Amino acid sequence: VQPSGHDAAAALGGDRRALARALTLVENDPVAGARLLAGLRVGLGRAHRVGVTGPPGAGKSTLVSALIGSWRRLGRRVGVLAVDPSSAFTGGALLGDRIRMTQHLGDDGVFVRSLASRGASGGLAAAAEDLADVLDAAGYDPVVIETVGVGQGEMDVVQAVDTTVLVLAPGGGDDVQALKAGLIEMADVVVVNQADRAGADRMEAALKAAFELRAKGPGLPPEPPVLLTTATTGAGVEALREALDVRVGEGRAEALGARRLERARRRIVAEVDRRRAAAWWHERADALAGLARDVASGRLDCGAAASRLLSGEA
Amino acid sequence: VQPSGHDAAAALGGDRRALARALTLVENDPVAGARLLAGLRVGLGRAHRVGVTGPPGAGKSTLVSALIGSWRRLGRRVGVLAVDPSSAFTGGALLGDRIRMTQHLGDDGVFVRSLASRGASGGLAAAAEDLADVLDAAGYDPVVIETVGVGQGEMDVVQAVDTTVLVLAPGGGDDVQALKAGLIEMADVVVVNQADRAGADRMEAALKAAFELRAKGPGLPPEPPVLLTTATTGAGVEALREALDVRVGEGRAEALGARRLERARRRIVAEVDRRRAAAWWHERADALAGLARDVASGRLDCGAAASRLLSGEA
Repeated sequence: VQPSGHDAAAALGGDRRALARALTLVENDPVAGARLLAGLRVGLGRAHRVGVTGPPGAGKSTLVSALIGSWRRLGRRVGVLAVDPSSAFTGGALLGDRIRMTQHLGDDGVFVRSLASRGASGGLAAAAEDLADVLDAAGYDPVVIETVGVGQGEMDVVQAVDTTVLVLAPGGGDDVQALKAGLIEMADVVVVNQADRAGADRMEAALKAAFELRAKGPGLPPEPPVLLTTATTGAGVEALREALDVRVGEGRAEALGARRLERARRRIVAEVDRRRAAAWWHERADALAGLARDVASGRLDCGAAASRLLSGEA
Repeated sequence: VQPSGHDAAAALGGDRRALARALTLVENDPVAGARLLAGLRVGLGRAHRVGVTGPPGAGKSTLVSALIGSWRRLGRRVGVLAVDPSSAFTGGALLGDRIRMTQHLGDDGVFVRSLASRGASGGLAAAAEDLADVLDAAGYDPVVIETVGVGQGEMDVVQAVDTTVLVLAPGGGDDVQALKAGLIEMADVVVVNQADRAGADRMEAALKAAFELRAKGPGLPPEPPVLLTTATTGAGVEALREALDVRVGEGRAEALGARRLERARRRIVAEVDRRRAAAWWHERADALAGLARDVASGRLDCGAAASRLLSGEA
């Protein structure tokens, strides 16, 4: 059964089953999903979209669960998109983590949805953005997107949010080294979770030292706060929630606005490129088949084949 | 110093430093890299490209190292592309694995190259394909592409090879369940490594049972062989090497040909789409900026913005 316009309205009106069906439609049926999204614009762009990422084992799901509790105590309705791993190789362990979020299962103010990264090649960020739109329109704010923290697809999800939280845990000490090359540049808020463990203070100091070395100035991202939490006890979770909420508070809309503008730009470009490519290739299937044979056999290189198609020679 | 035509020729002639520079150029400089690739077509498409994937801890690097030894004893020159994780979160452990491959460091018949998946969003398969082209042209055959086995980017690499080897290890028994959703459908050869561990026989039986349930018929992929190996002792490695070599043997070229044709088609499409988009958007920067503002503020949905651009209204 496909959701009708009635169902979409019901989803936005608080019917959880209708919302679940609307999310499934948007994830799986591009045409009907686009129609549904086009009908959702009223009230959209309200929710603060928070991405939570970091290495496996840092305690992301437990922390997200604690954050949900903090927001719920303020009466906020929280949507969660949990990005599942592409390969399902590590599915067992990660699904186990997610089970920690079930403490909010009976709460109508919390909606948790899994988003499989497999099959969404190059499109995971777009899928996350579409699903977040639905949760946003249904009145969930914030919408948290939790990734598994490895893989390009999951990294791309960072592009779909207003605020990126990087969750780390005290480890062998090489974390900071490893992270120098990675996601740390994209973090708006950095959390050292499991702060009751040995090495947390040293890690906090190392992170702060690393941020001080970054270039500063107008136009460059500000130094992210480094917060200590122990998600299992709730220590530090209120401070983290406040650090997130302040980003959408008075006078801060401009910074998020620039990011939302860039996101809108990227979404439009992706949609236009997709439609233009579909129409263009429809006319050139035979020419492409011939050139592919030449490239596969080593007679022609890919760049030359592209040039022939573009010049109309092929 | 950029490689010149002379350097490219030297790389193909067996100069390892020139080869390393050529690979760096192809990875980092699209324009000069494309020129170099265009000059490499002679003798290309000869190498058997073997992808090795599977969950962390299955022993992929040890197995690849043992396979290299097996091919070397037959006088084959082996190229290896080791895909490093996107996020660098788990970089330490994985680099540790890779160190096992250093037993071939002094051997001129083996060339190992790392390929960082970070930053190559949507382009990891293309980058792997370009670098494999260079190794292929330099006379390495087979070229092994080893992934870290998680994340969409790494999954995409499967598209860049002739033969995909899925490496598993006996675990808690839920591996097969987890894999039902994943890469197992793309595997041409399945290896149960660490076969000296408890549960290897049971895992082999479960995998074979799973493959028997798959649909069979003309046009559908044949049932992949399931092989047992113990990479640390070398047990089963010769049989695996033979199972790989037979795929490029007499009378089998046709099956690989179809896959190579599909790969060539995909590469041409990606290159053409990239060039068409660059030219088209160059003319429409202002219109896009205006529509992005409307989408970001919730006044317009992304699909409608795309329609306006395509119709020339914007």
